[in-house]
Amino acid sequence: MPRYRIVIEYDGKQYCGWQTQAEGGSVQDAINDAIYGLSGERSRAFGAGRTDAGVHARGQVAHIDLEKDFSEYQIRAGLNFHLKAHSICVLEADIVDEEFDARFSATRRHYIYKIISRPSPLTIDAAHNWWVPQALDIPSMQSASKYFIGQHDFTSFRSSECQSRSPVKTLDAMDVTLEDGVICVRTHARSFLHNQVRSMVGALKYVGSGKWEPEKVAEVLQAKDRRQCAPVAPACGLYLMQVDYPAPY
Amino acid sequence: MPRYRIVIEYDGKQYCGWQTQAEGGSVQDAINDAIYGLSGERSRAFGAGRTDAGVHARGQVAHIDLEKDFSEYQIRAGLNFHLKAHSICVLEADIVDEEFDARFSATRRHYIYKIISRPSPLTIDAAHNWWVPQALDIPSMQSASKYFIGQHDFTSFRSSECQSRSPVKTLDAMDVTLEDGVICVRTHARSFLHNQVRSMVGALKYVGSGKWEPEKVAEVLQAKDRRQCAPVAPACGLYLMQVDYPAPY
Repeated sequence: MPRYRIVIEYDGKQYCGWQTQAEGGSVQDAINDAIYGLSGERSRAFGAGRTDAGVHARGQVAHIDLEKDFSEYQIRAGLNFHLKAHSICVLEADIVDEEFDARFSATRRHYIYKIISRPSPLTIDAAHNWWVPQALDIPSMQSASKYFIGQHDFTSFRSSECQSRSPVKTLDAMDVTLEDGVICVRTHARSFLHNQVRSMVGALKYVGSGKWEPEKVAEVLQAKDRRQCAPVAPACGLYLMQVDYPAPY
Repeated sequence: MPRYRIVIEYDGKQYCGWQTQAEGGSVQDAINDAIYGLSGERSRAFGAGRTDAGVHARGQVAHIDLEKDFSEYQIRAGLNFHLKAHSICVLEADIVDEEFDARFSATRRHYIYKIISRPSPLTIDAAHNWWVPQALDIPSMQSASKYFIGQHDFTSFRSSECQSRSPVKTLDAMDVTLEDGVICVRTHARSFLHNQVRSMVGALKYVGSGKWEPEKVAEVLQAKDRRQCAPVAPACGLYLMQVDYPAPY
């Protein structure tokens, strides 16, 4: 019974998130249907991260168990064939050891959040960036972002629906850069709380627009009070970019 | 009677091209409606270039004449308000001399064509790039692109419907680069024939995939025979980026 690791890209706009739903419409549902189309087996894809409705992925990772043997090429090309009607594709497929678990073996998740700050509404970029009509001060956002790095109680920056047992997480990095007119917020950590990245980006936008001083981020962290957080940034700007695993994965 | 110069961005996917149509559905139609919404005047936007159905613009330029006086801010913000339902926006608006003509004053048009070459179908990038499943040899495409530069009879590289009196055009530049996984073909000239950029890119794709040697491009140019051209590249990868004018515009 071989186990496969697949790397998946999707446009989140058309899906109610990664996680399977009774009424369908999730990325996982579409992939499970493609697995059935390819293999005739009612198996499931187990993902590394449960992205929310509207969140994109450039490098979601999942594992799949099948009874039949397929080559890596057959898994990738076969799933892509059955995903033709979707904005989802399999970028890579590998045969892995049965100890590999897309969620529990993951050592690091990388996200990027994209903001376009300009007076005119977005057209070409509308579905894949957050449009902020105000000017944003990038150096202030950079200063503020540094308060998030390290181990903190992120209670102020998680969804009220977050199911994580502990609000304590360790953020390894958070960088704010301007690239071709797009403000890119890059962050990675072993794991994140529900809505954590979008909550942190919402705070950085408050700092960038002058509503908060950069130091306010440290205060709100310390308050451990969800009500002190800025509005959560919209899903359309967020991408799950990469998931890391211990060698050899 | 002030004249305004506007710089326009649009997602070509939803439009039948720049040029106004009896049944509507063009970018120009949407802008003309917005002009009426803002001013109550039945004026028209005259564009620098007639982009085809599905072609995008980051820097289309048009001029508009109005009876009433509006500030530059009112033109930009007012047109954008009336374009809310569209994937079209006004990036800049300036009051210009009545000698300024978006089409006839233009000295240079800049285009970019974006190709993503990879085995898996596109998701996030599908509407804004040409997906080529084969691997493409970029150095060969670079060599081939140089044959297009300079003054040539581009009969082999124009649409059979092209209305230009002469097939002779002078291409100032053509560069092929790989940027973040996207093959970018950049070109500029005073003006182009109908379908010229997409025809040249179609030829470069033949070269990149090994179907043509780079030198074949010179042969096909010399043949002055449309039937020798490679298939025209799809509209979704093409962007009108910028239009240049003599100072002070």
